Formats: sequence, C-alpha cells, structure tokens
Amino acid sequence: MSLIQVINPNTSAAMTETIGAAARAVAAPGTEIIAVCPRHGVPSIEGHFDEAIAAVGVLEQVALGKAQGVNGHVIACFGDPGLLAARELASGPVIGIAEAAMHTATLVATRFSIVTTLPRTLIIARHLLQQYGFTHHCAALHAIDLPVLALEDGSGIAQERVRQRCIQAKREDGSGAIVLGCGGMAALAQELTRELGMPVIDGVSAAVKMVESLVALGFGTSKQGDLDYPRQKPLSGPFQHLN
Amino acid sequence: MSLIQVINPNTSAAMTETIGAAARAVAAPGTEIIAVCPRHGVPSIEGHFDEAIAAVGVLEQVALGKAQGVNGHVIACFGDPGLLAARELASGPVIGIAEAAMHTATLVATRFSIVTTLPRTLIIARHLLQQYGFTHHCAALHAIDLPVLALEDGSGIAQERVRQRCIQAKREDGSGAIVLGCGGMAALAQELTRELGMPVIDGVSAAVKMVESLVALGFGTSKQGDLDYPRQKPLSGPFQHLN
Amino acid sequence: MSLIQVINPNTSAAMTETIGAAARAVAAPGTEIIAVCPRHGVPSIEGHFDEAIAAVGVLEQVALGKAQGVNGHVIACFGDPGLLAARELASGPVIGIAEAAMHTATLVATRFSIVTTLPRTLIIARHLLQQYGFTHHCAALHAIDLPVLALEDGSGIAQERVRQRCIQAKREDGSGAIVLGCGGMAALAQELTRELGMPVIDGVSAAVKMVESLVALGFGTSKQGDLDYPRQKPLSGPFQHLN
Amino acid sequence: MSLIQVINPNTSAAMTETIGAAARAVAAPGTEIIAVCPRHGVPSIEGHFDEAIAAVGVLEQVALGKAQGVNGHVIACFGDPGLLAARELASGPVIGIAEAAMHTATLVATRFSIVTTLPRTLIIARHLLQQYGFTHHCAALHAIDLPVLALEDGSGIAQERVRQRCIQAKREDGSGAIVLGCGGMAALAQELTRELGMPVIDGVSAAVKMVESLVALGFGTSKQGDLDYPRQKPLSGPFQHLN
Amino acid sequence: MSLIQVINPNTSAAMTETIGAAARAVAAPGTEIIAVCPRHGVPSIEGHFDEAIAAVGVLEQVALGKAQGVNGHVIACFGDPGLLAARELASGPVIGIAEAAMHTATLVATRFSIVTTLPRTLIIARHLLQQYGFTHHCAALHAIDLPVLALEDGSGIAQERVRQRCIQAKREDGSGAIVLGCGGMAALAQELTRELGMPVIDGVSAAVKMVESLVALGFGTSKQGDLDYPRQKPLSGPFQHLN
Amino acid sequence: MSLIQVINPNTSAAMTETIGAAARAVAAPGTEIIAVCPRHGVPSIEGHFDEAIAAVGVLEQVALGKAQGVNGHVIACFGDPGLLAARELASGPVIGIAEAAMHTATLVATRFSIVTTLPRTLIIARHLLQQYGFTHHCAALHAIDLPVLALEDGSGIAQERVRQRCIQAKREDGSGAIVLGCGGMAALAQELTRELGMPVIDGVSAAVKMVESLVALGFGTSKQGDLDYPRQKPLSGPFQHLN
Repeated sequence: MSLIQVINPNTSAAMTETIGAAARAVAAPGTEIIAVCPRHGVPSIEGHFDEAIAAVGVLEQVALGKAQGVNGHVIACFGDPGLLAARELASGPVIGIAEAAMHTATLVATRFSIVTTLPRTLIIARHLLQQYGFTHHCAALHAIDLPVLALEDGSGIAQERVRQRCIQAKREDGSGAIVLGCGGMAALAQELTRELGMPVIDGVSAAVKMVESLVALGFGTSKQGDLDYPRQKPLSGPFQHLN
Repeated sequence: MSLIQVINPNTSAAMTETIGAAARAVAAPGTEIIAVCPRHGVPSIEGHFDEAIAAVGVLEQVALGKAQGVNGHVIACFGDPGLLAARELASGPVIGIAEAAMHTATLVATRFSIVTTLPRTLIIARHLLQQYGFTHHCAALHAIDLPVLALEDGSGIAQERVRQRCIQAKREDGSGAIVLGCGGMAALAQELTRELGMPVIDGVSAAVKMVESLVALGFGTSKQGDLDYPRQKPLSGPFQHLN
Repeated sequence: MSLIQVINPNTSAAMTETIGAAARAVAAPGTEIIAVCPRHGVPSIEGHFDEAIAAVGVLEQVALGKAQGVNGHVIACFGDPGLLAARELASGPVIGIAEAAMHTATLVATRFSIVTTLPRTLIIARHLLQQYGFTHHCAALHAIDLPVLALEDGSGIAQERVRQRCIQAKREDGSGAIVLGCGGMAALAQELTRELGMPVIDGVSAAVKMVESLVALGFGTSKQGDLDYPRQKPLSGPFQHLN
Repeated sequence: MSLIQVINPNTSAAMTETIGAAARAVAAPGTEIIAVCPRHGVPSIEGHFDEAIAAVGVLEQVALGKAQGVNGHVIACFGDPGLLAARELASGPVIGIAEAAMHTATLVATRFSIVTTLPRTLIIARHLLQQYGFTHHCAALHAIDLPVLALEDGSGIAQERVRQRCIQAKREDGSGAIVLGCGGMAALAQELTRELGMPVIDGVSAAVKMVESLVALGFGTSKQGDLDYPRQKPLSGPFQHLN
Repeated sequence: MSLIQVINPNTSAAMTETIGAAARAVAAPGTEIIAVCPRHGVPSIEGHFDEAIAAVGVLEQVALGKAQGVNGHVIACFGDPGLLAARELASGPVIGIAEAAMHTATLVATRFSIVTTLPRTLIIARHLLQQYGFTHHCAALHAIDLPVLALEDGSGIAQERVRQRCIQAKREDGSGAIVLGCGGMAALAQELTRELGMPVIDGVSAAVKMVESLVALGFGTSKQGDLDYPRQKPLSGPFQHLN
Repeated sequence: MSLIQVINPNTSAAMTETIGAAARAVAAPGTEIIAVCPRHGVPSIEGHFDEAIAAVGVLEQVALGKAQGVNGHVIACFGDPGLLAARELASGPVIGIAEAAMHTATLVATRFSIVTTLPRTLIIARHLLQQYGFTHHCAALHAIDLPVLALEDGSGIAQERVRQRCIQAKREDGSGAIVLGCGGMAALAQELTRELGMPVIDGVSAAVKMVESLVALGFGTSKQGDLDYPRQKPLSGPFQHLN
C-alpha cells in the first residue's frame, strides 16, 4: 500500500481535480493518490514570479504530506516549481511533471516536441531542457497562446488549440513524441495519443509511475550531499511552520 | 498481467540468472519476467566489438519476445547494445540498463558516479552519457579493472572491489548516487545502498520498473518517424529470420 | 541621482550591513544605496529550500523598492534566488551577485575559480554557471566547509579559510581570477585582490556597477516577451500584497 | 604499395561497384583499392536495425581484410556502422565515410549542410555529428525522401532530387559546403561541385585519402586503451570465425 | 578622473566619430573619452582577413593609449578583433563591443537577437557567442546584406534596413532584446529602443560603462596566468615598436 | 606535381628548418614542400599577442604562395594563427597544425592528450578544441613549462621534458593518442610513437597529408559564403601589398 501526494502548485480547485483524476487513472492497484493544492498562492502559473510564489505552497504541502506519511510527491506544474527545494525537504522521491514527461519522451522516441500554453512560459521549458540534459532531444517548442485557466473554462477552445498544435507538430517537427506542457492538459493525452498514432505524453501520469517505481526500488531522495535535509534554522513569519 | 523480457546480451547462463533474479525481485505482482540470452554470441561484453556481436543476439531475442507477445523488453548490459535497433524492431517499450540507471540517478540526486568493470568500457559509458544528455550529471567514472566474468567466479573479489570503489566514490566525488556499471553487479545494489546510506543503482531493476510504467501508461516505442519498424527487405544468411 | 536597492535575501542584519557597506564603497557619486532584507524568511541561505523561502522575501522587497521609486535592484546572495521572478516584477534592472561576479570575471580573465561556503551550495553555483553560459569559463569550485553565518561570528576563522582557499586556487587551478561565492565575503575582496595580485571578485560591488551602468544606458528589464510583468491575478494569503 | 579495403556494409553489388569506382578515382598511384561487401546482411541500410545487422558483416570483412594484409579500411555507409568495433579489430586505420565527409567539410568551410536519403536516417547523422563534435558545424540536414536503392534504379530520379536539394541548401542554409549523406551518391560529388561552385563532398573518396594519409604517417588505430584488440573469448555460432 | 580609449579598429574617420560620439553620450561625468583609429589598416571590417589586419592596429593603439596613461580600452568593432591580444598588452581592462552588447543583453532579457551588416560576418558573431558562452542565449542572427560603410554614406538606406530587421526580429524571434552588430550602428540604438519598446543595444556605449565599472572596482586585466604581459622578445619590421 | 607551402608563423630560421624537414619526411612523391617564415614578426609564439602579430606574416606568406602558384598552405604553429583569415585569402586549402593533429587524433583514438610548451598557451589550445568541436575528445592538457625556443637550444632538455610528459600522459590520462602542441616538436613524434607504443601526433606532417588529400579531391577553400575572398578595399601602410 503506497501513498502518493500529487501537488497542484496553483490554487485552482478545478485543476487540482483534473490532475488528481489523471493521477488516479494510472495509479497501480496498491497506490492511493492524494491530490492537493496550496492553501494560498496563485490561481495559475504563467511565469517565474508565479512559480516563486507557488514554490512556497509546494513546500508547505510537501511538509504536510511528509507528516502524513506519504511515500512520494509529484509537483504537477510543467515548470517543476520548487523541485530541488522539495527534494531537500522530502525523504521520499519528488518528481516534477515536466521532468517526468521529458524523461518518458526520450524513452519512446529519439526527439520530442513540446506544446504548452503562453509563449512566455517557453523559456521555463527551455531552461528545464538544459538542466535535465534534453536540449538536443527537443525538436521544437509550441505555445497555443492561451492562458492556463482557459483549459478550465469549459469551452473546449484551448483543448482544440492544443490538438491543432499537436497535429502541426506531427507534420512539421520530425519528432516521435509530443510532451504536453501543462498539468491542465492531463486529460487530453490518451485521446491525442490515439488520434495521432504517436505518444502524446502527460507529465502527471508519467510522474505517478516514476514515483511508484522509485518507491518500489527502495529509493527516496538521496540525503548524501546537496539534497540533504535543509539545515535547521529559525524561520520567521509565514514560513516558521516549514522547518 | 504483463510479460517483460529481460535480455542478457551475453551468453553467460550464470549472468542471465543473476539478472533474472534482480528483475524478479522488483517486478510488480502482475508482472512476469522472462530472462533470456542469445543462443550465440559473446560470453561477456567488454568493448565495442563485443557489443556489435551482442546486438544481433539482442535483436534475435527481441523478435522472439515479440512473437511470444511480451509487453516490453530490457537490454541488460551496461552499454545498452542494440538499443535503437531493438526499438525499431519492437512495438512495446525497450529500455537499456545504462539508460535506466542513469535516468533514475538524476531523479534522486543532482549528480552521480559510475562504477564499472574494465577501464576500456568507460568510453562506452561516456558516449551514452552524451547521447542521453547526462554528461554534466556525472561527477566521476570509476573502473575496478576486472573483467565482467570475475563477477561470476564465486570468489567475491570483484564484488569487494566494487564495494571499495563505491566507498571511494562517496568520499571523493561529491555525488549523491552511484550507478553500477554492469548487469552482473545487479545483486549488489540493495546491500550497498544500505551500507553507504545513499542510492546505489542497478540498472536491471530500474529498467524493469520503467518498462512496467510505460506499459501502464499505454506507451510502446513510437512508430512515428525514425524508430518506425525496419523497412521490409530480404535479409540473407544468418540474419534471414530477423525481418 | 540614482537609487539602487541592494537586497540581502536572508534576514541577518549583520550581513545586510556588510553588504550595504560593500555596495556603498563602490557606488558612484550620484548613487544612493538602500540596503534591505526581507522582514521574514531564513537567517542564512545554504540550499535550495532556503532559496525558495528567500525568493518570496526578495520579491516583497523588489515590490517595495519599486514603490519607493528605486532605479534598480541587486539580489545579494550568491545563488541569485528569485532573479527571473524579480525581473518580471521590476521595471528597472535586477542583477544577482553570482551573475555579476561571474560576468566580471570573464572580462578580466579567461577562466576563474569560485570559493564558497558549504559544499552543498556548489550545485547551485554549477547550475548558475550553466544557465549563464560560463561552465567552460570556470576552472574549479571550492568550498571552505563552513556555514554562511560563520562569516559573521567575529572569530575571523571563516575569513582565514577563504584566504587559504584563494591561495590554493591561485596555485593549482590555472585560473586568472577568483569569484567569492557568498555575499558575506564582500569585505574580503579588496584585500585579497591586493595580497594575491589577481582579481578576487565580490559580486555585491560588481552588481552595483552593473545596475548603475544599465541605468545610465537607459535600460530596464525588457518587458518585451518572457520577462514582462506578471499577469494580473488574485494572490491569496501572505502573498496578496505582492501583485 | 598500399592496399585499402573499401567495405560497402550493404550487400548490393551495384552499390559496391559505385563505391569502388569512387574510391579508385581518387586513389594515389601506389594505392590499390579492394571493394567488398558482406556475404550476408541487408541490401540497403536505412535505420538502426539495418546498421546493427550490417555491422557484423563489416567486422567479418575487416577480419578478412586484415588476414589479406590490407593497410587500412573504409566503412562506406553514411552511418559509419560498426566503426568503433572495427577499430578494435583492425590494426590499421579504419575510417567511416560520414566521419570522413564531415571532417573534410570543416576544413574547407565554416559550416556545412547534409543531403541524405530517407528522413528516418537523419537521426543517425545527428548522433554522428554529436559524437564527432560537429553539431555546431552543421547548418542544416536535408532528406530527399527516397530509399537508398533508388540511387541504383537507373532512372536518375534520385540523382535529380539530390541535385535539387543541394541547390536549395546552397540558397537557404548559408553553409559553405555540402556533405552527401549516402555512399550511393559518391558518383555525384564531382559534377555537383562544379555545377554549384562549392565543395560537394562524397565521403568515400574523402575516406580513402584519410586512410592513405594515416598509413603514410605510420598511424594505425591506437591499441593503447579503449580501442585495443577485442579480448580473446570463445565466440559461438555464426560469429565463431570472427575472433 | 578617468581616461577611456575607444579604438575604432578600422581607418574610417567618419566611423571613428560616430563611435566617439556614442561613447561620450554615456560617459560618466568624470570620464574622458579618447576616440582613435589605427594609422594604417582597413577602411572597414567585413571578414577574418580584415580582422587580422585590424588587430595589429588595435594593438598599436592599445600600446599608445597605455603610454598616454588611459585607464581602459574599448575595441569598437563587433568582431572584437585582437581582444585577447590587447588584454595581454594592456594593464587596464579591455572590452570588445560584441562582448559588451552580448553580456548586457543577457542582463535584461532571457534571449536576444543580433542584427548585423553582411551575411559573411555572421560566422564571426557565432564564434563569439560560443567563446563567450552565449550560444543558447541568442535566438536568431540577422544580416541586412549591406557593407559596413553603407552606414556612413549619408543616404540612410542602411539605417532603414537595420530598423526593418529589428522590427522583424521583434515580431518573429521571441527574444527580449536586440544587439546591433556593428560599431557604425551606435547612433541608432536609442531611437530604436524607444520605437520598438525593447532594449536595442549598442556595444560601444555598453563597453564604455563596463570599462568605467571595472576601473571603479579596481580591476584591470588579470596578469595572473594566460593574459599576462606578452613575453619580451625582439619584434622586427613594422612591429618593432609594439613590444 | 603539387606544391605545398608550409608557413612557420614565427621568424625562427631554425624552427622553419625543423618544420620543413618534418613536412618533407611525409610528403608524397609528387609533392614539393616550400618552407617559409614571415620576413618580420615574432621569433616565437607564446600567447595571443604573439599570434596577432604572426597572423599578418602568415597572410603575407599566403599571398606570396598564391602568387607562386602553390596548391595549398600549412600554418605551422599550434595556435593556428590567422587560419580563417588565410582561408579567405587563399584559393587552395589551408590547414593549421593544431587542427590537423587534433583531427588526426580523433581518427585513431577515442580521446587524446595534448603536450605543449608554456602553461599560458593552454588557453589557446582550449579555445581551438572548442572551435573545432573536440572539447570532449581531449582527456587532458599538459605544459612542459619551457618556452618554445628551448626546443631549439640544442640542449635536449625541452625534448626530454616532452618525453617525460608523454609518458605521464600515457600512464594517467586514459587517452589513446598524444598530440604534440608545438611545431618545434615535429621531430619528436616518430620516435615517441615507437617508444610509447601509441600514436604521438605531430601536426606538421598531419597537415601536409591533409593538404595533399584535399588537393587530390579537388577541393580548395570554399568561396561560397563566409570564406569568400576578402572584399576589395584600399589597405594602407605596411598592409597595402596584401590585397
């Protein structure tokens, strides 16, 4: 019996539900998914500022999850906000959905495309590609030019734009897989995979399987070296409950 | 119910058994492991020549596994011989153990060390690091300067050298995880992880979990683009049964 | 007349003073330095967790500085916490001290060494080198293995260790400049430059000159593209005053 | 008097002839060319699977050539299949035609374009660029979208498509040389060089000159370190004659 | 009181004036600008040959400037000809305008575009991007396809083409800043910055501020290691006055 | 009948002779070697300043060689001074000896070591490795810490130090070949290759074979694009005879 905490770093309840559902859809029989979001923060994440705010909420949730005894954590926003900080705090594994989707793509294709929301978030994806080592595995980056919450407005417009961009990516990029660049797109992956006849990868489900795998292998985040627990020190103000 | 074929690319029955055991030890309840090795080829793999020979045996086994209806394949030699060729041939996922161990290491630590057998195989690890994007995630490479089959001679000498090198790597490299650079070291990972207090990663078990995950996510190797099935053409001689 | 806000991202008043003094020592006649630190946060920054907490305080101070009409901002911690987030928030230039010191080093030498505090912070420096493009300009990284606040304990032990490491770096690394890897080392740069006969660079003073230069050139942070102001959205809880 | 073995890794007699002719056209007075192909294998090479099969045939031929006393070997397929394995086996130099063409291009131009056959082979070229160090020297890759053997069908259609793509590359890529990405294009290089007024490089002829040069300099493949002869071990089945 | 020598590496008096004016426009109150050009050399610099000639003139001027007691030097041609040689000769800082503009761009935007003169000079910019570490920070390179001296012909045609290319770069490249790739474009930066609403960076003014900053920080070129003064040796012919 | 001009970029007659002899020792029967050095310049090249001076002499000699009708040029100093400028000026091929030795090393070994003269020249080798794409192919760089002309003082001390460093490199670096980092070491390569039992590569001889090869293939320097002839313009003073 394994508990995985899936953290939506923004405060949107609808998106937390979308993400939780995607996580549960692939969870192994013995896995229970706890989908949470920060109590306070930003309703959607579309830039470095939003990420910096969200990271604190992610850490708060990781601390809560740890207290609850969860076995691992997923950070369900495509910029993987607070990932290395969360790894310091956690004893179990912590996986970001951009990380999960990118790693997964390199296992089933030689190069992949990314389809994300606003153009201003592309730089975040570029920096992650570089940090994770996948710059040369990414054939192209696309933005549908709609904000994150358009995926939750019920109109289906954003979903259709994602679909169109995936079709375009298949036609033009010469890549073998597509990575969906937002936790809010999680529900689209399976249908697009079928329609396009190629892997269209949602990071939420990919990350759940990675956490399950690491737990099964007996690996938490390494406490040898630079991801060791944060050094004890008095935190003040709104942060004092975090250490 | 899922069938995973674990292919030991060399012809050593003892090593095939070691690898099969490591795979079974982590397989999920619903997973059955089929551990095989080529009928013909090299008894151990310690260079590019050995790898080229072994790759044909790997392909043969992938073809057989596919005919048997396995859901995915593991190539259980640290050089990942024939990986991209096997991906073309297979419809399910194919994972190499160097690939699996390296990916896994980057998920639990910022940088890792590698401990392998003969110095002449280090270049193979270096090339894989570059191809997978992890050159900058590898803090150091170590060789115990013993051939692969020393791991199967029953004396325990090679195992002790691996242990010593892991201890040295922990002390000197500043890395947070250690990757074991040979399928024949699979049995050592768990004990060394405990003794060193840091993740010591065996690629065989890591690869099994990756294949399970990809199967659960519904992903095989992408047939869109450059990993599509090999183009039909008449193969001759000892290769004619392969296409 | 130009106002530069120098933000110490930790909450140590002593270090804020050290940093403010270093900034004032090089400020041009027409520049006024405002040295601040967050109201709440961490007393010292020695890892990703500390950085994530500190980043919120940095943003708070940037917002305050902007309201005060400052012309530019310096983030005076060697990990440059919150740098891109702060650039989104600010209209003027924002410079991190790691960034400033590294850029400066490449202008006076072909390769440089870094001397910092705890080994666990080396990975932060490595990631910044990669992000800024200077991986190949850094000859070696050194850690004195003492926490940040040892620089403020009045004993002089940490300072002497910095000095010894700089001497070692000069002897062994083949580099032409040394970058001091902590805002708390700002007071040492001038004396070490003299003693070693080579540039020993403190990022605080370097960053002040960069902000002055950008202001004189008429450049703030570009609002074209991905560093545009954060999209307006309701922030909740302790963050609501930030947008 | 020098003997160079030019190995066409596929089993097409027509292509072996094309390649042999290209080799002889540039061979120095004292050089004799022996053009061979494997007895068994694939009739054309258009992917990793084909390459893995072909590599065994290459090794077989290298062993035969060595027994015959040849002074060096050329692997005349643009993916350089089996190159490092062949270097282990050989005592003389071994040069791949992709390697030869890419090296040559960097000596006469700052950046080059590649024109090859099927799009699925582009990834092989990309990986070679990375391994050889020339990723940043390649301005663009083009595929004519015809299989390799179309170059041998006598219609001239493939040849005309190569020509059109070269003209396009000259117009659009800003590169100073074009590399032909298939041994079967060897006959086109000279005429296209004349027509386009820029170096259009065939790897077969370039490789022959490289082998001649290495032989003249007294260099074989280094047996110091990781390209040393394969370790003696009993090979079984169709491979037993190889060691 | 600080003296900065701004060296136009070509022999065009008109361009020396343009450059001198740009330098003076941003010089701090206490800075005096001395704008010079070589006595002999090339009237404009549009390739490596021109650069090699110009480098000698640059060194001659650096030697003269040093004799005059200047505090630092700017090399005001976008290829930064003779930069490292000049650093050996000088005791004060030496800054190239490509270097200055590229560094500055990375401080105000995540990625930048370059707009330069002739296409043949693009390779020089590419090599500098690589040497300075900014390959991944450059989104695109543009050439107006007019020679350098078209900027001095009084017709305004070249200036209009620069403007058009900057507008195109803003629309298409997704970058946050534009770097002007020629000292002769210095006069355009301020107006284009205003018109485009994004930083359009002239390297001359940026370099002046960098030299001022380094002088204020007390840094000259490091004489520790590989930028030490040239070893004394008898120079002959037209070079004998240089050492 | 082919004429190759071997240009020693320094003015040392003794070294010109050493280099000419090394070139003649490997020249093909039909090749005539013309060994020259600039009339004026530096007696040895040990830094960027020396290189900048030497580059003008190289260009002068290239122009003279071209007037004489030589078929190709070698720049026989390990920093390859003026290489791209010379390529613009020349119609035939131009090869630098660092370039030649590095390329050659990658053809016979997976990684190589460099042994050069003064430590201050190491940065030049590093920059060339980066420009040519071989950074990851170089295992280590060594300097014997003696000036270039020590190789011509008749004592044999420098030669013995080169030998010792080569032996050390073989023992410690794990590389398969050694590149000699100075034209003045040309006479040592053959003997060291024999003694060490691994390729010890002199760039002069390697470059001669490369020029011969390019000439035989019918390739000069590409005049398409950025290595086209320098644009005609009035050169003044000591440079006026160069265009």
